[in-house]
Amino acid sequence: MPKIKVGIVGGTGYTGAELLRILALHPHVTLTTITSRGEAGLPVAELFPHLRGRIDLQFTVPNDETLTNCDVVFFATPNGTAMRSAPQLLNHGVRVIDLAADFRLKDPAVWAHWYGMEHACPNVLAEAVYGLPELNRESIRQARLIANPGCYPTAVTLGFLPLLEAQVIDSSWLIADAKSGASGAGRKAETGLLMAEIGESFKAYAVNGHRHAPEIAQTLGQLGSGAVNLTFVPHLLPMIRGIEATLYARLTDDNCDLERLFAERYATETFVDFMPNGHPDTRSVRGSNMCRVAVTRQGASNVVIVQSVIDNLVKGAAGQAVQNMNLMFGLNETLGLDALALLP
Amino acid sequence: MPKIKVGIVGGTGYTGAELLRILALHPHVTLTTITSRGEAGLPVAELFPHLRGRIDLQFTVPNDETLTNCDVVFFATPNGTAMRSAPQLLNHGVRVIDLAADFRLKDPAVWAHWYGMEHACPNVLAEAVYGLPELNRESIRQARLIANPGCYPTAVTLGFLPLLEAQVIDSSWLIADAKSGASGAGRKAETGLLMAEIGESFKAYAVNGHRHAPEIAQTLGQLGSGAVNLTFVPHLLPMIRGIEATLYARLTDDNCDLERLFAERYATETFVDFMPNGHPDTRSVRGSNMCRVAVTRQGASNVVIVQSVIDNLVKGAAGQAVQNMNLMFGLNETLGLDALALLP
Amino acid sequence: MPKIKVGIVGGTGYTGAELLRILALHPHVTLTTITSRGEAGLPVAELFPHLRGRIDLQFTVPNDETLTNCDVVFFATPNGTAMRSAPQLLNHGVRVIDLAADFRLKDPAVWAHWYGMEHACPNVLAEAVYGLPELNRESIRQARLIANPGCYPTAVTLGFLPLLEAQVIDSSWLIADAKSGASGAGRKAETGLLMAEIGESFKAYAVNGHRHAPEIAQTLGQLGSGAVNLTFVPHLLPMIRGIEATLYARLTDDNCDLERLFAERYATETFVDFMPNGHPDTRSVRGSNMCRVAVTRQGASNVVIVQSVIDNLVKGAAGQAVQNMNLMFGLNETLGLDALALLP
Amino acid sequence: MPKIKVGIVGGTGYTGAELLRILALHPHVTLTTITSRGEAGLPVAELFPHLRGRIDLQFTVPNDETLTNCDVVFFATPNGTAMRSAPQLLNHGVRVIDLAADFRLKDPAVWAHWYGMEHACPNVLAEAVYGLPELNRESIRQARLIANPGCYPTAVTLGFLPLLEAQVIDSSWLIADAKSGASGAGRKAETGLLMAEIGESFKAYAVNGHRHAPEIAQTLGQLGSGAVNLTFVPHLLPMIRGIEATLYARLTDDNCDLERLFAERYATETFVDFMPNGHPDTRSVRGSNMCRVAVTRQGASNVVIVQSVIDNLVKGAAGQAVQNMNLMFGLNETLGLDALALLP
Repeated sequence: MPKIKVGIVGGTGYTGAELLRILALHPHVTLTTITSRGEAGLPVAELFPHLRGRIDLQFTVPNDETLTNCDVVFFATPNGTAMRSAPQLLNHGVRVIDLAADFRLKDPAVWAHWYGMEHACPNVLAEAVYGLPELNRESIRQARLIANPGCYPTAVTLGFLPLLEAQVIDSSWLIADAKSGASGAGRKAETGLLMAEIGESFKAYAVNGHRHAPEIAQTLGQLGSGAVNLTFVPHLLPMIRGIEATLYARLTDDNCDLERLFAERYATETFVDFMPNGHPDTRSVRGSNMCRVAVTRQGASNVVIVQSVIDNLVKGAAGQAVQNMNLMFGLNETLGLDALALLP
Repeated sequence: MPKIKVGIVGGTGYTGAELLRILALHPHVTLTTITSRGEAGLPVAELFPHLRGRIDLQFTVPNDETLTNCDVVFFATPNGTAMRSAPQLLNHGVRVIDLAADFRLKDPAVWAHWYGMEHACPNVLAEAVYGLPELNRESIRQARLIANPGCYPTAVTLGFLPLLEAQVIDSSWLIADAKSGASGAGRKAETGLLMAEIGESFKAYAVNGHRHAPEIAQTLGQLGSGAVNLTFVPHLLPMIRGIEATLYARLTDDNCDLERLFAERYATETFVDFMPNGHPDTRSVRGSNMCRVAVTRQGASNVVIVQSVIDNLVKGAAGQAVQNMNLMFGLNETLGLDALALLP
Repeated sequence: MPKIKVGIVGGTGYTGAELLRILALHPHVTLTTITSRGEAGLPVAELFPHLRGRIDLQFTVPNDETLTNCDVVFFATPNGTAMRSAPQLLNHGVRVIDLAADFRLKDPAVWAHWYGMEHACPNVLAEAVYGLPELNRESIRQARLIANPGCYPTAVTLGFLPLLEAQVIDSSWLIADAKSGASGAGRKAETGLLMAEIGESFKAYAVNGHRHAPEIAQTLGQLGSGAVNLTFVPHLLPMIRGIEATLYARLTDDNCDLERLFAERYATETFVDFMPNGHPDTRSVRGSNMCRVAVTRQGASNVVIVQSVIDNLVKGAAGQAVQNMNLMFGLNETLGLDALALLP
Repeated sequence: MPKIKVGIVGGTGYTGAELLRILALHPHVTLTTITSRGEAGLPVAELFPHLRGRIDLQFTVPNDETLTNCDVVFFATPNGTAMRSAPQLLNHGVRVIDLAADFRLKDPAVWAHWYGMEHACPNVLAEAVYGLPELNRESIRQARLIANPGCYPTAVTLGFLPLLEAQVIDSSWLIADAKSGASGAGRKAETGLLMAEIGESFKAYAVNGHRHAPEIAQTLGQLGSGAVNLTFVPHLLPMIRGIEATLYARLTDDNCDLERLFAERYATETFVDFMPNGHPDTRSVRGSNMCRVAVTRQGASNVVIVQSVIDNLVKGAAGQAVQNMNLMFGLNETLGLDALALLP
């Protein structure tokens, strides 16, 4: 089988670097181009020394011809970039996986509200598939354009999914208290992201509303329990990688066997590990494409609590993107994604 | 005014060390004895080098005579210790401040359930005052025996307090998602507390039920809105000091001016800082006795979100204990507690 | 005694914030102005929430009149700023303490080489006193202009000082392997200082030569052993506050009693704590103005190893600056500097 | 080719866990037994959740029969354990790789001095090969018994090696200032290893002499420059994985082309990456078997400075052990070791 020719647009951020780390070991991939306007000419391995000897490319200015020769192009760019280039690439038969938010919200008006700009290609948006394999595997296999889910949405959705599909919780008030490591904010030169600002401290942010809330609510609303009211609060952790989401809901079915529900729903999912009696910690998924979930009914109450952990850069971004690519190209879904978490 | 003669039982843990750090600079205190069975004979400053030159005492075996000569004795001991010594000290006219949990729960049966032993002095328990000055200031002034609040309960209670006193939220489901630094687990040689286990990771724990839940519920139930149903989930942060609690409730009074409510309730409280529009971070209280709170109504929903941060070793333990001592001895409540947070 | 009117130029960095934290509690100081061109109009406590309720000033544009009305002005500015304003302030009788490097190197040509610009006032430079109280206490009392030592130079110099004064080591090769927390790099929006870049990692930097090397060598050369050859390598620690320097030299006097030498040299120094048999850790000085040192002769070799720790923002910057101010104004040297280290 | 049957004695520590993480993905290995007296009966994946679904074994009590059926046994045990079992295993034709120190020092008397016990099998000690492939590759291929190098010795030796082999430095005084993450101390329930003790702090330790010093000196003394005088000081970093060693020596050959020397020496070494002009950071090797080195001549001095970084659990322990196993069994040296570093 010929190797898949892969291009990456926007390779200087953390999701770009993580794509490189994963794809460098993928047996069926040839990296053909990595673009960066700001760093054009710089060897990739000079910016990211962990890739020395494994990635010999230089960053290049994005170039139509180079990209249209790819089989698939990953966009690891700021929001609003992929939607300007995707239509042309699709026209050339190139498949597109956007790791940013351009194709995640189905309603262009909602997208414009949260992202502060008009959507550049609403018609293409309509065909985009939301790339959560545990939910949309068959559509992903057929897709030309993937909206790779956000990091928080991946962790929260996989936690609520079995409960909402089984219609055993009250969807009129779902709470997601989510916490992310600093890499989730990207590789940006901002004072607020400095070691001396984030280290040894913890806080909530965006309590008034975060862009990932409508994305999560959109997916949760498709799971069989109808529209949901979601309260979502993100927090910033004094560490680099990892998201933990603690989810709260009220059971409507008092007899529901929660452990069995989760165990059965995820029995065949390679990248979701249901932990009975567990307290999943983020390090147990660090560097891996795994999502680990646990579910608890606290005491005699009707409150169900779900814990869900992922590595925000892997299952929450680059790893899931590669999982989607594998599906799109008919490969084993786990290719390139067999790394175990780095613990300790 | 003669100085207050202070004894500390159990000086080798973090709350003991923090009492020493604070009391060493207190203008009206003389430290007369610091006990530790395990470290008797060891100079305090050898275990805690930051106290070199400031604390010249050695740890001693607890001794009735030495302790009964104190004006006040702080217990920075494991649960179940203070309740065995407090009655005798009180009989000798010594005031007692217990930083452990022995006198926090009013019902001895509930206490026995959560702490796994019978209460040693239920009659004395009845007179103990719960040492949250913002709630019980006048009782504290008269008290002989203080149950110093737990760290999580301090952060959570100060967050919900204005809402429950004003009876503007639905107390049938309150959620407290709380996160603590590692010092909250104490200075214990346990594998689970190692740097290599906790660093760069995050998890929930005690999701099935934590001892601080009944303590919080007991206090919240006294605030005017009646008994509460509380869902409490603690989490472990990869850092040393600090608690953040994110609290969720549903408003029952749609017209409530939340900012005004909090601002007025805490207007005269030195150690509670209401931050309009803020996202309090734990570093803004690190090493200080301050609790900072913020309140938000998310979007158009009826959900109110409170953020509350404290330093678990100061306002959550030793600082609040000294605040209580100041009140008990008719001193300015802030004596010894004027340190600003260490930021960055 | 009337309070000292203090101005701070450049209050938005970490050394500025630390000056504010210390001076807010200083009994003989009135803060009259804090300048920042970039943040003029912003309340100081909005940028630094730990100062809420304690510092009511706003940042202002630097203003000649306001500054010349001060008794002393601290410069917490980038290199090259103080040297442009100091002469005028001195002419108005205002004392100046520069926390940057403008007045540290005696030779303007050397300064120009390392700092990449001509010195703006070589004549004023000549009268500047290097503000290391343990070395220059009497000159500091008389000084109008203080060059506050760099953070690395403070730690390294206090470590080598007893050995060079006693002329017991071979000054033809001194090695200082120094490590600093991230706050030493300042509050700058640079990618290299992000949590996700610095956390959980360690490296040397500026191995080819660091600006602090000539500063250290200049001071060491004045200590009685003649000119020194110094190898200095700084490293970046995955933490916020603290410098540790491990120093290596060869003993020339085989009979030297190292412990006695250090103990006697620092016997009367409040802010240098010699620890016999110790391994000083940086947390034992976190937030305090203390320098802790230990000295070891390894095995039977003639190699002497000194460990020296400080908080880079306190004894390495703002605390030492206040210590200098106290000396210049005839106050007790320790005023405002009695905080114990925050441990844990 | 039949798979190699591998046993691990002492699987509950960090080096044991790391062996499992690496070997689980090794294409030519079958894990047959993992022993632990303390945790016998416990599924491995319960202690180490990152191995869930990948390692199905339980810990067992060490058992002669099970171990003698292995092709190779790794000892990830405390010092003094492997030397009691190795002779018997060797007699049964089982190859042995000891990750502890039992076979590292050639002189049993020196070993007894540093490790506080008599050596149990000095005759077997004589045939042990020091498993640093970059130095002893051919001997390793033939070895029955490997002394896997210590973590500090690996980093320090690979840094000094080109200089000593080329005889271009003065070996009468070599200095190694080394820093390690907390995982280097192992998974032991000790107060001194707690997050709240190590986090946000830094210190030297064992300044009087560390067990790795004689091991390093023994190897350096074999490199062609004769016996060396080594000053070695280890430090503890507030992070989990990684060692950085900064090495100092004086050049004796003023014309030596340092960059060329290092580049040529390591040109064919897969796991040593010489970085011209670089400042290697530990994160660039986190989770990988790579050692990255840089060399600098500071200014016009004759001082040469080498920086060397490894992951203490991989190239400093389990990864190097697998590299040795590959060599012993005639496999490609890099099998199972192709993971790139996890950055950020």
